[in-house]
Amino acid sequence: MDENGNVRRYKKDGGYSYALGASPTFELLRTRPEIVLCVLWDPEFTDKDSLARLCGERGIPCRADAKTLRRLSDKENCYAAGVFSKFEDAPWPEEPHLVLDRPSDQGNLGTIMRTMAGLGFNDLILIGAAADRFHPKTVRASMGALFHLRSARFETLTEYLARFPQKKLYPFMLDGASELEDISPPNRDIALIFGNEATGLGTEYAGVGTGVRIPQTGAVDSLNLAVSVGIGAYHFGRKINKANRTGENI
Amino acid sequence: MDENGNVRRYKKDGGYSYALGASPTFELLRTRPEIVLCVLWDPEFTDKDSLARLCGERGIPCRADAKTLRRLSDKENCYAAGVFSKFEDAPWPEEPHLVLDRPSDQGNLGTIMRTMAGLGFNDLILIGAAADRFHPKTVRASMGALFHLRSARFETLTEYLARFPQKKLYPFMLDGASELEDISPPNRDIALIFGNEATGLGTEYAGVGTGVRIPQTGAVDSLNLAVSVGIGAYHFGRKINKANRTGENI
Repeated sequence: MDENGNVRRYKKDGGYSYALGASPTFELLRTRPEIVLCVLWDPEFTDKDSLARLCGERGIPCRADAKTLRRLSDKENCYAAGVFSKFEDAPWPEEPHLVLDRPSDQGNLGTIMRTMAGLGFNDLILIGAAADRFHPKTVRASMGALFHLRSARFETLTEYLARFPQKKLYPFMLDGASELEDISPPNRDIALIFGNEATGLGTEYAGVGTGVRIPQTGAVDSLNLAVSVGIGAYHFGRKINKANRTGENI
Repeated sequence: MDENGNVRRYKKDGGYSYALGASPTFELLRTRPEIVLCVLWDPEFTDKDSLARLCGERGIPCRADAKTLRRLSDKENCYAAGVFSKFEDAPWPEEPHLVLDRPSDQGNLGTIMRTMAGLGFNDLILIGAAADRFHPKTVRASMGALFHLRSARFETLTEYLARFPQKKLYPFMLDGASELEDISPPNRDIALIFGNEATGLGTEYAGVGTGVRIPQTGAVDSLNLAVSVGIGAYHFGRKINKANRTGENI
């Protein structure tokens, strides 16, 4: 935003982004009101009073501004948007991490955020040249889940490991030595690692931790990245929760 | 295609569609050569000789035609396309079915096809006003997996059930009575049923079969449809295969 409150086109190296659509905007306001710079709505949006009330309670600037909404969004049915400052959180050391090495697709990244929030994985790590986690397309695909997650970026695997040396690592690879079904993590202090959509994980991951394989037919080259993350996170989440419920490591 | 071999813009009610991209085109030629009408490539495509050879062996018309490729595809890096007749297969009665009620997104539908082929579910059923399974966007998102699947469409659930009365049904619902993890299908003669992206399954599914719930947090409204299908298909596939290996029902 400039000094007159005008919202400009998204820039990767800028300080702010926006949540497009009513549902992500509400999610933003409820989850991270402290980062919201302003909220815009279309005069025809039926629930604009709720938005105005939420903004009023929190002292957040807001206004009807159909023109800016149309400019920010290709979709005609975008009735609201929330402009927010990009944020950085320290991942929690002892919680399960979801690590993505160079994911390239914004839609996939957003869908993965949504999957994580839905399955209770709250710490997202990006490594290397990854899709922009704050891009409006990512935020939209996440349905606002971005605001529920702690996320951080590291340049290399080595940097990440230096920061979290105790993590038990599970890189997902087509030729992983262990079948997903046979793996039981000892506790919550784990990292599930997934590679780029087209190239998977590089050779630097071959000797790292326990390689995990999701069994699949030869009919396709691989599963979609977000689908693989969903299957992996569901399996590990289930095992972790069972360990917690019974009070013992499994 | 018209009588001069010109490929026209895709039509939902037309008799043919096309696979855009080298990888889906090769998949089409290898899996269903009998439905291929013609193959086009860009003169700069490095693997055009392999395409020409495959077409030659099967008597399929083929040619370099960069202009048509550009017209058919928004993507500049589309180096090949295969034009194919739409096809209809009878689903196998005793194999597991994946049933989608009114899925609306072509990308999701294609990703689900890819997930099915990867996890060994080969029979796709669409019910009601569903996204077009032959649309080039669906085919592209499927990475050619469409050609591995048997697929059919029914107007209503009732029509489907009349045709496959013996199927054991597992509708996936946010309030399903059984947790996914606790379900063990008796055999392969099952149908996993998933609803529309935005609205899920309608009330007509409430009393049908065993309602399945994928446990999730309250942080998101629901998981992405393709991710849910991946988690469900992985779980059921695993249980079915285990039953087969041990030679007993579980």
